Amino acid sequence: MNEFSLIHRFFKHPSDVSLASQKDSTIALGIGDDCALISAPANHDIALSIDTLVEGVHFPKNAAADQIAQRALRVSVSDLAAMGARPHSFTLALTVPSLDEPWLELFSQGLFAAASDLGVQLVGGDTTKGPLTLTVQVHGLCHEGEALRRNGAQCGDLICVSGSLGDAAAALAIIGGRHLSQENDKYLLNRFYFPEPRLKLGRSLRGLATACIDVSDGFLADLQHILYSSSVGAQIDLPSLPLSDVLMSNFLREQAQNYALSGGDDYELCFTLPEQKVDVLLAKDLDCSVTVVGKIVSGLGIKSESGLDLVSKSMGYSHF
Amino acid sequence: MNEFSLIHRFFKHPSDVSLASQKDSTIALGIGDDCALISAPANHDIALSIDTLVEGVHFPKNAAADQIAQRALRVSVSDLAAMGARPHSFTLALTVPSLDEPWLELFSQGLFAAASDLGVQLVGGDTTKGPLTLTVQVHGLCHEGEALRRNGAQCGDLICVSGSLGDAAAALAIIGGRHLSQENDKYLLNRFYFPEPRLKLGRSLRGLATACIDVSDGFLADLQHILYSSSVGAQIDLPSLPLSDVLMSNFLREQAQNYALSGGDDYELCFTLPEQKVDVLLAKDLDCSVTVVGKIVSGLGIKSESGLDLVSKSMGYSHF
Repeated sequence: MNEFSLIHRFFKHPSDVSLASQKDSTIALGIGDDCALISAPANHDIALSIDTLVEGVHFPKNAAADQIAQRALRVSVSDLAAMGARPHSFTLALTVPSLDEPWLELFSQGLFAAASDLGVQLVGGDTTKGPLTLTVQVHGLCHEGEALRRNGAQCGDLICVSGSLGDAAAALAIIGGRHLSQENDKYLLNRFYFPEPRLKLGRSLRGLATACIDVSDGFLADLQHILYSSSVGAQIDLPSLPLSDVLMSNFLREQAQNYALSGGDDYELCFTLPEQKVDVLLAKDLDCSVTVVGKIVSGLGIKSESGLDLVSKSMGYSHF
Repeated sequence: MNEFSLIHRFFKHPSDVSLASQKDSTIALGIGDDCALISAPANHDIALSIDTLVEGVHFPKNAAADQIAQRALRVSVSDLAAMGARPHSFTLALTVPSLDEPWLELFSQGLFAAASDLGVQLVGGDTTKGPLTLTVQVHGLCHEGEALRRNGAQCGDLICVSGSLGDAAAALAIIGGRHLSQENDKYLLNRFYFPEPRLKLGRSLRGLATACIDVSDGFLADLQHILYSSSVGAQIDLPSLPLSDVLMSNFLREQAQNYALSGGDDYELCFTLPEQKVDVLLAKDLDCSVTVVGKIVSGLGIKSESGLDLVSKSMGYSHF
């Protein structure tokens, strides 16, 4: 099997044929030529983001192939959610140490299951030999001028997060050998391997949020990006941080809070919006909870409700 | 230094500022948010291609950082040339084992030198820790319906290649320890590290060529992709294969011919066009030579002028 037959066997999905028959006018050309061709509808920008996952760094060496594929695509599509973009397509650069057919079969199943779930079509890729590494680039569509940016947070805006924080960091403890109940282990591992890009929320935030980011490196670290881009500071109400029941009932309060503040990989959205917009937002169908966790203030840095400097406490995850 | 400061130090180029001041309306948002935003002009498709280079597989372990960067970007932009697309922008996913600042500085210099030379702007990226691997996705612009495809070759069309074939394969012999004269070594290594995407030729082929591909895996292997997509065969006139003076004067004829037929990494264009279009093409300013090396015939496979089956002889480079 060479790269050519590998692509035909594992990465040409039956849906490609049905999509072609639907004449998706935004994909002028998919897999199989030197380039793919995308036609954005009039008055739309193409949002794009590239992310790499390395074995032993972003996922453990014993992770199943379908889990790796799911996580890679979900992590990337989360960046589209953070821009309020509509998922469109993706490319995959897959580096594998050998052509292990059962592994590739399982990987392909996970990849196309995630792609179908998230509404993105594989339009191109590259397969190379080397240490197991996946790079995914996702493409989304945004009406011109409607993308959510990081740089618009204003003093007085509320700081909100979706879902709950800290579960993915707790999952790393499970992966590292700690065990809770089977059910709780499964819940946390699912949060790590199958993060849910907050696409509906992201699209609902267009015209409401002043800034938005997805929580990949950790809540404090990612909030810092908004603050830095917007030249403002933040006050966080620590008791209001949304923590899952599993996190609260299995970890000490301080540990759970540290996971929520500094653990990465949650892929929830962190965003700011004027107080009077909150009701408008909450009246929409969002597919997830939204919690107000603080507010934007003048001056730089992040302080707790009691004046504790939270930035010096943690700067989020760094691989280096 | 974390990833954030790394990006600011090494991957925010001065040209970003000048480009922003020129208000490039096709880049609505560059580096520094969850996604970049590209606005294609009306009636244009975005051509995109992703390629990975792995240390020890696609370049030797002792390669200089700027050479690696140059090669990565040039190899990717060559896919745009093969589609007749105009280079626009790129993203870079860089995996490095450590934050080696002199290495990153040199890498950055090579990357921006190549970007400037090729006319592409860095719009996004990801930096991760792991075995040295580079993934580049390039974006180009094509008028709708004008992209060069692989599937239009017709019986009777001439098969042409740009420049000369086999030099990059010969460079691998130099990298492997063989030495010619200093000047000849340099010529061959430059052909490997600094391939010249045939952008002007690719754009000139729009409306003339019936099929086009860039020679990355080897002439026979890449021609096979055209033949497979177009359901035709080829007859190649072996003596007419364009070989450089350096290749011809330093290698036995058979070795040089094998490099040209089966060695990858040349990044010349291989294309087909009706005989009556050749003069139209050659009247244009192409920045490279064009040689007719054969013709499209009915029936599958690739035969030499003497009837030798060339496909069974070699199927090009496979990493696996």
